[in-house]
Amino acid sequence: MSHFAPLGLIELLAGIENGLSPATSIARAMERIEAVDGGIGAFATLAPPESLGAAAKASGPLAGVPLGIKDIFDTADMATAYGSPIHAGFRPSSDAVLVAMARAAGAAVMGKTVTTEFAFLQPAATGNPAAPGHTPGGSSSGSAAAVAAGMVAGAFGSQTAGSVIRPAAFCGVAGFKPSFRLLPTVGMKCSAWTLDTAGLFAATVADVAMLAERLSGRPLSVRQDAVPALRLGLYRSAVDGRIEPAMREAWETAARLAERAGARLVEIEEPAALARARQAQETIQFYESALSLTHERRLHADELSPRLREALEKGAAIEPAAYDEARRTARQARRAVTALFGEVDALLAPSALGPAPASLASTGDPVMNRLWTLTGNPCVSVPGLRASDGRPLGLSVVARFGRDGQALALASWLEGLLSRPK
Amino acid sequence: MSHFAPLGLIELLAGIENGLSPATSIARAMERIEAVDGGIGAFATLAPPESLGAAAKASGPLAGVPLGIKDIFDTADMATAYGSPIHAGFRPSSDAVLVAMARAAGAAVMGKTVTTEFAFLQPAATGNPAAPGHTPGGSSSGSAAAVAAGMVAGAFGSQTAGSVIRPAAFCGVAGFKPSFRLLPTVGMKCSAWTLDTAGLFAATVADVAMLAERLSGRPLSVRQDAVPALRLGLYRSAVDGRIEPAMREAWETAARLAERAGARLVEIEEPAALARARQAQETIQFYESALSLTHERRLHADELSPRLREALEKGAAIEPAAYDEARRTARQARRAVTALFGEVDALLAPSALGPAPASLASTGDPVMNRLWTLTGNPCVSVPGLRASDGRPLGLSVVARFGRDGQALALASWLEGLLSRPK
Repeated sequence: MSHFAPLGLIELLAGIENGLSPATSIARAMERIEAVDGGIGAFATLAPPESLGAAAKASGPLAGVPLGIKDIFDTADMATAYGSPIHAGFRPSSDAVLVAMARAAGAAVMGKTVTTEFAFLQPAATGNPAAPGHTPGGSSSGSAAAVAAGMVAGAFGSQTAGSVIRPAAFCGVAGFKPSFRLLPTVGMKCSAWTLDTAGLFAATVADVAMLAERLSGRPLSVRQDAVPALRLGLYRSAVDGRIEPAMREAWETAARLAERAGARLVEIEEPAALARARQAQETIQFYESALSLTHERRLHADELSPRLREALEKGAAIEPAAYDEARRTARQARRAVTALFGEVDALLAPSALGPAPASLASTGDPVMNRLWTLTGNPCVSVPGLRASDGRPLGLSVVARFGRDGQALALASWLEGLLSRPK
Repeated sequence: MSHFAPLGLIELLAGIENGLSPATSIARAMERIEAVDGGIGAFATLAPPESLGAAAKASGPLAGVPLGIKDIFDTADMATAYGSPIHAGFRPSSDAVLVAMARAAGAAVMGKTVTTEFAFLQPAATGNPAAPGHTPGGSSSGSAAAVAAGMVAGAFGSQTAGSVIRPAAFCGVAGFKPSFRLLPTVGMKCSAWTLDTAGLFAATVADVAMLAERLSGRPLSVRQDAVPALRLGLYRSAVDGRIEPAMREAWETAARLAERAGARLVEIEEPAALARARQAQETIQFYESALSLTHERRLHADELSPRLREALEKGAAIEPAAYDEARRTARQARRAVTALFGEVDALLAPSALGPAPASLASTGDPVMNRLWTLTGNPCVSVPGLRASDGRPLGLSVVARFGRDGQALALASWLEGLLSRPK
């Protein structure tokens, strides 16, 4: 269906190790962006030549690796508008921490990728390279699309409800939402402070794991050998009735392949403490978002989209007591999830209700993602399966809090199973 | 010893209710700043006339109330330099959330108060109005001093180790460090994301409680009637050997006055899980601060003070595994503190080792504050007692997580006891 091929990060690193110069790698990425982004609209701003020149001379574990950065992360060398006309042309005085970490590791920031307005509801005009005419998902729309189209080898996103996992699934790439605060969110425009999670995109799970390792200095890359005897929980939630047939089938296919490869499947009925928490996530998100954007609501209400303005008014009407109650529900949910990992090593669940919907007027529903964002568990969206019309379908592997390496290893193992002829 | 009198916020609100115009209140505050700040140096930047003009016409529960804002909070109408030459002249594109909330409530932001470099170690030149020649404490040096000198009726600060409670104690004013994240830190320059807490200063505990209530919309103000049968824990820590004689005496005096007024005193020996956690706070602070300032370390190392550069190098050398271990220690400490509140309603402990030290080369030691910042419990520094030479001494009332109203009510009750003739 799509004529785009993502750019493998591990393969690129091997090329650089074997003599490909960072300058050439960066020039190729820029050529690719110039050739294809006109039809996709993944980038909001491209890096100035002097920044790319400096990156071409950088050294470090990510030297020569082209990255796209969601325009919700501050950059000192480029305008950062957070997807809103209110901040058009704003130049922060420092890079967001994750951006500074990437540059310190030698990576080349190719530009800022399109975000929905303040990483919330209002879609942007980015297309889905893997399913033309369909939404790329959001709010990290441009990052997912830029990776899917092979313009960059990795990209940064952020997730407050489902803004990394869902676009990764819709665009057919790997998405990694780490344990809450594993990657610093400092210098990201805040949407909801107890939920906002920095996340990563790359072509495959092994690629996104390598990016996470080289960024953070933590041992997260996938070693091909060890996948332990696996108890895999099939997480049956209270909202599963809304899952589309193509996704049901993909979920079932993945489960059977895992079982055939030695996993023990465990049916997990959603505990009441977790069914309740999905609504708590919404309460917390709306309450905190309304506060986070107090300045914009106070002085620039007419420059907010009607959809966002309405959402923020809804959030501002939530009483502190209702918010506090939602926070308590969230704490109970975290304990309930941790208890599940006494029974299983990982959970398998859909990354979205189905493939990307056929509309650019919405970025799709984050209902399958809200819970894992609220509980802060590491979650990896595994690409590989497709609907009958070719649109990508993503499955989520969720692991215990802090077990990010395990989540990535199991997701990569699953990805390997899905890519073999069935 | 001091010829300065703080400006009572509740008294000012009563005046405004009885006809004092916000414009007059603001003009008086500006006159006071112009008259005395030359000798103190509490302000880094004063508000532009147009901002004060707008504030003079504002309505809301804080209309006419002059505030000072630590220069670690972003302001869209004033430069925000975070106490560093690296960011001199930087104009953020939005107000920090707490600043926007204050303005939405009608408050007048008189200017930005002096902070130590990035709210960390390197002192600024601010003096202590209540103890000339001595440090005002830090890192919220200017906010504490501005309130102590009666230039503003309230001020914002931030605490990562002891940066609200300690300067409040040294300057003889009330300081309130709320439960972690009760007040949004969005738009504050991040030092350590799991520790940074926005806090408030005012003349008395009742004043700071009223400020908290009118800012947050939560019922935090002190009602004079109800102080329940009180079990007050005297928190004896592993570092108490370092407490100075004047502070020992003040602590004992406060305890006896509380007992005479009906409180039951309970001796609390510091649990091992909490003694361990003081070091964990330092590990977390140094590790996160080094990451938070990655941009500055990478591009502006020569504009950092040698003291800060050294601290950040120390932080950058901490391994992720050691940091993760400190985070686990912190979680255990939170559980251990919560268990203490089964035995007592509140804890009483020194806010600092003694009165303000006689030097401007250091802002004093935060060792008495680290634990309560790490655990996120609400903490109020109660003014009222003094050393024999007149320097103020502050005592900390600490309550259960989320019981901010109780912490303020008990602290206000204690403040009343301390102010009566003994």
